[in-house]
Amino acid sequence: MISERSENIPPFLVMEVLEKAQQMEKKGIDIIHLEIGEPDFDTPEKIKIAAINAIHNDATHYTHSLGIWELREAVAQYYKSHYNVDFSPEQVIVTLGTSPALLLTLCTLLNAGDQVVLSDPGYACYPNFIQYIDAVPVTVPLNANNGFIFQPDDIKNKLSSKTRAVLINSPSNPTGTILPPEILSKIAGLGPYIISDEIYHGLVYEGKAHSILEFTDKAFVLNGFSKLFAMTGWRLGYIIAPREFVRPIQKAQQNFYICPNSISQWAGVSALTEDHPELSIMLETYNKRRKVIVEGLKKLGFGIYVEPTGAFYVLADARFLSQDSYKLAFDILEKAHVAVTPGIDFGQSSEGFLRFSYANSVENIQEGLARLQKYIQKMH
Amino acid sequence: MISERSENIPPFLVMEVLEKAQQMEKKGIDIIHLEIGEPDFDTPEKIKIAAINAIHNDATHYTHSLGIWELREAVAQYYKSHYNVDFSPEQVIVTLGTSPALLLTLCTLLNAGDQVVLSDPGYACYPNFIQYIDAVPVTVPLNANNGFIFQPDDIKNKLSSKTRAVLINSPSNPTGTILPPEILSKIAGLGPYIISDEIYHGLVYEGKAHSILEFTDKAFVLNGFSKLFAMTGWRLGYIIAPREFVRPIQKAQQNFYICPNSISQWAGVSALTEDHPELSIMLETYNKRRKVIVEGLKKLGFGIYVEPTGAFYVLADARFLSQDSYKLAFDILEKAHVAVTPGIDFGQSSEGFLRFSYANSVENIQEGLARLQKYIQKMH
Repeated sequence: MISERSENIPPFLVMEVLEKAQQMEKKGIDIIHLEIGEPDFDTPEKIKIAAINAIHNDATHYTHSLGIWELREAVAQYYKSHYNVDFSPEQVIVTLGTSPALLLTLCTLLNAGDQVVLSDPGYACYPNFIQYIDAVPVTVPLNANNGFIFQPDDIKNKLSSKTRAVLINSPSNPTGTILPPEILSKIAGLGPYIISDEIYHGLVYEGKAHSILEFTDKAFVLNGFSKLFAMTGWRLGYIIAPREFVRPIQKAQQNFYICPNSISQWAGVSALTEDHPELSIMLETYNKRRKVIVEGLKKLGFGIYVEPTGAFYVLADARFLSQDSYKLAFDILEKAHVAVTPGIDFGQSSEGFLRFSYANSVENIQEGLARLQKYIQKMH
Repeated sequence: MISERSENIPPFLVMEVLEKAQQMEKKGIDIIHLEIGEPDFDTPEKIKIAAINAIHNDATHYTHSLGIWELREAVAQYYKSHYNVDFSPEQVIVTLGTSPALLLTLCTLLNAGDQVVLSDPGYACYPNFIQYIDAVPVTVPLNANNGFIFQPDDIKNKLSSKTRAVLINSPSNPTGTILPPEILSKIAGLGPYIISDEIYHGLVYEGKAHSILEFTDKAFVLNGFSKLFAMTGWRLGYIIAPREFVRPIQKAQQNFYICPNSISQWAGVSALTEDHPELSIMLETYNKRRKVIVEGLKKLGFGIYVEPTGAFYVLADARFLSQDSYKLAFDILEKAHVAVTPGIDFGQSSEGFLRFSYANSVENIQEGLARLQKYIQKMH
């Protein structure tokens, strides 16, 4: 009845945990949410005002299929000022979120059987996207001993005549690590196209995140507004693509999406071009929470081999509690009323781990830690 | 360099015409737009206010992947009150427009090699969607002699063991015709799943459009807010699916889109549940324009074999001017400064035809007709 393609998509476990938690909440159970990769902050005020103005101005019609010129220009200027890289606004394709940006990129780049090298652990949906279009994800296990850093030599060992792209994500979900420039430079030189998911750029607490475009033009940058600007509900992202791919991506966009959301695009222009005092407050707040959760988890006995310096996640070894992260996550949810994401959602290499999101208040994080402490005490 | 899948997508000709027209406008040339399938009206006031309230209320976060319950309930109530059909809000999946709704439906229903029967002429992108996922569009030519009506017997002749679905669209783009209930009933009884694109429902000037759900539950309804509610820029649509397909569609939505736009969803709730005085004015206005354009085109010698009774399109035989609708459309654009869509965009059966959209003012339609008159006089 249901297509094979569809049957083969694994469930997105973080959503399974979230939905189960929401069911429990409907029954009146109080849950501490440390599973979701979503800012708990609201969208900054000026961005909201820009969107309201767009509605008043009746910017409610189809836009150009590649997006409004103002936003494409703003993206180019933003990358110029943040990373000192030059590209034309014509290379920017605005999308209905960073997920459709990845889908459009992969569809335009990959034939059936083509391979994409990516890290394990990594964002749960990456391999699903790749397999859905009959291409092949080739995973490289990351090692806590070298800081969960994607190693160019390990990638090199996986290259074949079928390798079409290397997919990177720095700052990374779920590890919170940032690829240093010397690593990025080596990855950029390997040969295949680099697809660089830069959605967590800006959420950096130590060091600096570099764009892949500082090292190569043979790259697709995926980015969006959901994380840094707390704009998840607006569904707005973009691709920065090599010139020759713009027209093929545009044809797919015209056919399958027509154009991105007109109102969100004006919100995006504000996000990139106006000053938002909320952003530095958010960053400072995430940083405080990061310290609280890392310290707290360590005290409870979780193995944190690499302290996260970006995004808002901690990947913690929970094998002192269980080898089976799926069972463990649901057991913690049911017994301790804390929602966390099982490591297996991110690949085999993080089985036995749990991902904690610190996109929640210090109070809630502390309450979550207290509940975990009781849970662990009962277990032992 | 570029994937075969991507190379094989034909350009979307209406967009080619539009983009060429926009280039000419940048040079200061005045163009009459009769090509675009987009309401020239702005979104009704109460819908805009609902969206602004959503922004003020910080409804800017991820929603449930299937959409907010209020909107899913509103869709079920809307279909109950308009078509007297019963289904659960749980069967409604809210999407980022009707195009992604079709993509999600096809991906969930079709394996490689599966066939979908659809009409020629029909919406240009339908076969592109089907081919993109390695399924096979099987077209049935429509005949002006029986009113461009999709004939159940013709569909029956195309059924094979590989037929997985029949795709219908009533009121239809590009013909503007409406399938009568006895035809819908017969199509519903043919056996395969029916995918019914009901996006032009509500834009009906004579007779009544029926939902496929009045005749069978073995159907996927695709609908959205772009056309009837003049909400193209909001990118909001939905699927009404058989229960067993909801979860597979949800998994694909979670992976590839996460969720629909939060603000647009609240706008959608207003669209379906509040009274909008603008709607009857729009409908009356489209109807006046319809009469003006049909009469005007006939006077100029275009063959209009079936007067459109729904949507906002006229498909007119232009073979007295040229057999090649693509060349003709661009020639008219260049010489007469009127943008129209070549019939070939909708399939081989409408080669030699042009599609005129009357989503433009009576003044502009009359100016367009006057320019066409001069163009035709010069040609002969």
